[in-house]
Amino acid sequence: MITDRLIEKIIKTENPTVVGLDPRFSFVPEFIKKESIEKFGNTPKAMADSFLTFNKVIIDSVYDLVPAVKPQVAMYEMLGSCGIQCFIDTIKYAKEKGLIVIGDIKRGDITSTAEAYSDGHIGRIKIGKEAHEIYGEDFITINPYLGWDSVEPYIKNCKEYEKGLFVLVKTSNPNSGELQDIDCQGMKLYEKVGSLVEKWGENIPGKYGYSGIGAVVGATHPMQAERLRKLMPHTFFLVPGYGAQGGKAEDLAVCFKNSLGAIINSSRGIIAAYTKEPYKNKYSEKEFGDAARQAVLDMKADLRRCIL
Amino acid sequence: MITDRLIEKIIKTENPTVVGLDPRFSFVPEFIKKESIEKFGNTPKAMADSFLTFNKVIIDSVYDLVPAVKPQVAMYEMLGSCGIQCFIDTIKYAKEKGLIVIGDIKRGDITSTAEAYSDGHIGRIKIGKEAHEIYGEDFITINPYLGWDSVEPYIKNCKEYEKGLFVLVKTSNPNSGELQDIDCQGMKLYEKVGSLVEKWGENIPGKYGYSGIGAVVGATHPMQAERLRKLMPHTFFLVPGYGAQGGKAEDLAVCFKNSLGAIINSSRGIIAAYTKEPYKNKYSEKEFGDAARQAVLDMKADLRRCIL
Repeated sequence: MITDRLIEKIIKTENPTVVGLDPRFSFVPEFIKKESIEKFGNTPKAMADSFLTFNKVIIDSVYDLVPAVKPQVAMYEMLGSCGIQCFIDTIKYAKEKGLIVIGDIKRGDITSTAEAYSDGHIGRIKIGKEAHEIYGEDFITINPYLGWDSVEPYIKNCKEYEKGLFVLVKTSNPNSGELQDIDCQGMKLYEKVGSLVEKWGENIPGKYGYSGIGAVVGATHPMQAERLRKLMPHTFFLVPGYGAQGGKAEDLAVCFKNSLGAIINSSRGIIAAYTKEPYKNKYSEKEFGDAARQAVLDMKADLRRCIL
Repeated sequence: MITDRLIEKIIKTENPTVVGLDPRFSFVPEFIKKESIEKFGNTPKAMADSFLTFNKVIIDSVYDLVPAVKPQVAMYEMLGSCGIQCFIDTIKYAKEKGLIVIGDIKRGDITSTAEAYSDGHIGRIKIGKEAHEIYGEDFITINPYLGWDSVEPYIKNCKEYEKGLFVLVKTSNPNSGELQDIDCQGMKLYEKVGSLVEKWGENIPGKYGYSGIGAVVGATHPMQAERLRKLMPHTFFLVPGYGAQGGKAEDLAVCFKNSLGAIINSSRGIIAAYTKEPYKNKYSEKEFGDAARQAVLDMKADLRRCIL
């Protein structure tokens, strides 16, 4: 079961950190962009090529320190077909390095459409007698707004191919409360969604007490995270919002139970560390991978100080 | 303003129908699949190739009868990069034929990520001094669960490039009520979302009284649609669920005001008409385009009987 494997990798690395692979042209180093533009001109293909080069260096620099990476598909999808190919190649490279891959795709649609997303991302596409694995993420994120029949189509592939889900419950953005914090029948909407996710998870139980259907719970809302931790004792949390979005390690302890139960994402704080304090004067542009590695080590120390 | 243009095309075609371009290997005719598999083997590329051939025939058969088409990205995304290229080529072909294109992508994410989706789908991707239009849909569908700061990043591109949005309010699937019908402070959640969408639409006013931010309102829930029509007088409705999902023309009248205010989607009912009653004995596989054309004419008559 994939959540068991994630937990085992967190225990082994002693590090509940997932590195968000959300490359942007603004912080991919000039020497990488120059090489790609020389090959492909000022095109989306050049941008995708530079993203893949960038991601490989980041993965090489951190794969032994973290259990997982989380590419955000939007950064690739915006480039069209060559971007999607880069997303797929990034997943493949990360898996070859032994990393668990969480595809941050936040899809949500009616059953027949969800089946297509499910087969493409975490299942197989059957053509004639051949079955093709297209994306191959280990986990994907999904949106709960359409209800259970938009989630169920993923369960079969989760069981058959040892995959998992993280469902949006309480997101990290400033306006997340506009709907998620609405009072509904004596509870907040995010608590209602949280209890549904806890229940849906019974379909994929795990040996460490956490199901294969996790929850996205933003680090920027510690009080809500604390309530959700109690409401969802068997649900693993994927926690965005640490660092760049303002979430602090002190606030994250509430997401954990006995040092387990959550994995904390950092994207720009790690992959663009060479552009930020305290790394930018210590690492040159060419050393962006080393800066990312140091940022992972610093984040690990910061988390362990508060969690253990 | 794009909703104005959509309304003008609906008036011109006298047909508030959008054709859902959701191809599936199960109903793409054998002679098309055979040709693609001969070229590319049993591969995702063959499937994407057959989808594009199929879509072009459908578009050629209906472009003069309908204002718009709505490709569902999941059917293409599941095939990886070649599927995304097919999605893009389908959009391009439909626009060349003068159709308005609604990209059914249902994205929803935090601001920085929404900006990437927005620039890719309805804006421009700037690389060096060049600005690339990647997908080029006229409208896209989005998910409201993250709140206003997940919607706002689309507004700038909507204004700059004359684009529009349809926000999920009340979806057509059987379990849509699980969250959307929850009682929240004296109203249902979908009504709360509806009032937000009506308010968000003030950012993009239109000359016919409908804003550039429409709402997805399922045909399978006529009572809810009636309430939403009153609650959202300036919001154009995109209505899925007619036909295959069980929505009837009689139930759709509530979505309209003075014969305007909504566009009704049909996907399989039109594009797979040659496999279904009453068309399957009248049209051969090779005539699947003619069957789709007749299905559009029949749907138009069915809608006009109830709406006018």
